[in-house]
Amino acid sequence: MYAHRIDSLQTAMTAAGVDAVLLSVGLDMPYFTGYEAMPLERITMLVVTPSGVPTLVVPELEVPRVNPDPAFEIVGWAENEDALAIISNQIDEARLVAIGHQCWSGFLLDLQWRLPETFWQSATPLTRPMRMRKTSNEVSALRATAASADRVAVRLARQVFAGRTEADLAVWIEAALREEGNDALSFPAIVASGPNAASPHHHGGSRVMQPGDTIVCDFGGRMNGYCSDTTRTFVVGEPSVKISKAHAVLLEAQQAAVAAARPGVTAESVDRAARNIIGAAGYGEYFIHRTGHGIGLDVHEHPYIVEGNDLILEPGMAFSIEPGIYLPGEFGMRIEDIVVVTAGGVENLNLSPRHLVSV
Amino acid sequence: MYAHRIDSLQTAMTAAGVDAVLLSVGLDMPYFTGYEAMPLERITMLVVTPSGVPTLVVPELEVPRVNPDPAFEIVGWAENEDALAIISNQIDEARLVAIGHQCWSGFLLDLQWRLPETFWQSATPLTRPMRMRKTSNEVSALRATAASADRVAVRLARQVFAGRTEADLAVWIEAALREEGNDALSFPAIVASGPNAASPHHHGGSRVMQPGDTIVCDFGGRMNGYCSDTTRTFVVGEPSVKISKAHAVLLEAQQAAVAAARPGVTAESVDRAARNIIGAAGYGEYFIHRTGHGIGLDVHEHPYIVEGNDLILEPGMAFSIEPGIYLPGEFGMRIEDIVVVTAGGVENLNLSPRHLVSV
Repeated sequence: MYAHRIDSLQTAMTAAGVDAVLLSVGLDMPYFTGYEAMPLERITMLVVTPSGVPTLVVPELEVPRVNPDPAFEIVGWAENEDALAIISNQIDEARLVAIGHQCWSGFLLDLQWRLPETFWQSATPLTRPMRMRKTSNEVSALRATAASADRVAVRLARQVFAGRTEADLAVWIEAALREEGNDALSFPAIVASGPNAASPHHHGGSRVMQPGDTIVCDFGGRMNGYCSDTTRTFVVGEPSVKISKAHAVLLEAQQAAVAAARPGVTAESVDRAARNIIGAAGYGEYFIHRTGHGIGLDVHEHPYIVEGNDLILEPGMAFSIEPGIYLPGEFGMRIEDIVVVTAGGVENLNLSPRHLVSV
Repeated sequence: MYAHRIDSLQTAMTAAGVDAVLLSVGLDMPYFTGYEAMPLERITMLVVTPSGVPTLVVPELEVPRVNPDPAFEIVGWAENEDALAIISNQIDEARLVAIGHQCWSGFLLDLQWRLPETFWQSATPLTRPMRMRKTSNEVSALRATAASADRVAVRLARQVFAGRTEADLAVWIEAALREEGNDALSFPAIVASGPNAASPHHHGGSRVMQPGDTIVCDFGGRMNGYCSDTTRTFVVGEPSVKISKAHAVLLEAQQAAVAAARPGVTAESVDRAARNIIGAAGYGEYFIHRTGHGIGLDVHEHPYIVEGNDLILEPGMAFSIEPGIYLPGEFGMRIEDIVVVTAGGVENLNLSPRHLVSV
């Protein structure tokens, strides 16, 4: 699998006239090698040239963590060696080098200093087309972790919310994601209650959940490297009329966006499908983020479902559809599913109930 | 506090002729603002010029997560805005710009493209001298989380190891770190048993711990932003003579390095103090990493205790002292404490027993 992916990358490099690709921290490297660099000061870097076997330059003490594969050669560097010299020596003939988006600037600046004749660009235009189109094995991995997140959502609806802190419920969700088979979290679980729910990325804290609160729970795990990410909104006791009405609009908007997604339409058209309904109902200014983001090895990756993105959707693309309505000082709500584009529409990977569940 | 730190940074910028400092993901930004950027595709960046109030450019949906402070001005950017244009417009007169080490290369490349006349360098020479010398408040924070890790180490020595998987014990350690008052982990706990212990950064897996194994447990939490990091080595049942002998050498080496650390000596001299003892006992080739790393907001930061680092230690510097001995295919062991340089030597923040505890 890795040999095949590297082969595709080398073909794309040749077509683009790129002499070397450097990948480090982030998920591009695991996509091509199965190995994820520790995000630490000791550099790990995959050096790919248009032909031949790529080199994985890795701190010597981390060599035992790498699963060897014929697709690449492992070069360990010792504590007193100059790892950036090893890398720059390998590419000193390269005129155009593409470097991974998340590679640390400190390392890029050092390489630019050592190789002053070289032109540098982002590796994303080379890696994005590959990573964005999921194979059936990748879709299976996304489906499995999405199903685990759905099981957590169903168990969550049976939890007691009132009288409990946001942070406490977040810890429960994180443990449940592991119990349901995830190896890790794709991000720290969000539990945002009452006025806190109006902050889309609120970090659950000491606030105690109270009757009348909406509670946004946004969570996901990683299973075999692939991420899940789902959001459901709950209400403690009976919702107010204002909350019920807003949630009905939100659900309609979310379903409309799911229905709008299919091969041949643009990413922004899916955003517009949700935004039009929320706007028509008078909540337009309270939907303060894009409709979604791609998902795979990274919890946020291409394609982004946002105004201005005219990318044409194709089968195998996987992304979230997650409109929200946020009234500052009052409440917030969001509904999020992961979908994968199929030949005729999308497969929705999240199947847990989407209505406003009273807890 | 943040105003004072920004003031010091601006003084250093003026002295170095740097026209702007850009800080993003990583811990430099929280050091100056209290706010940690989400490591996602939406850019967050602190823009500091030699005078005036810095600007924190942050995604609009994350503005509610920022604690406002008079030390900086918050500028939110909407989903359909060009955040890099906002940043580049603020520094379009700058000739020399310093950018945070961990800022993503993709953003640096974009800024270099927009500002072709600008020279770029790393911000680390400006931020390192400040972050490396801890104030008494920072030392108190390190002491508190170190004490919590010590409590976990003591409880760990009473756990049953035999018959249990590495992964299971790692989960226990992580939960215990939270129970002892940490808000988060400083890194995923390492539990490495038997031959796996010969891999310093082994990720605990399905191996079941067995009589005669050494088990390296390396873990730490974050409390109020500051990190702990300690390692103790255990043995299931009775250790072999070979293991006992190696551990005695290791403990002597670790204590010698602690004794060698004081103001006025170099970082590498502390490394050498440990390495000489391990080398003299015939294990030199099995001590495959440096002796230590600085610690603070980051779990690995300056100063690094490594051959070739002639930095002179000063009061307030905090770092690990963690020699190890790793025999491939057989066993591994490591002992790690965090120390802070004082006027006359060091304060050792980790006080849990260091001998080879039978479990």
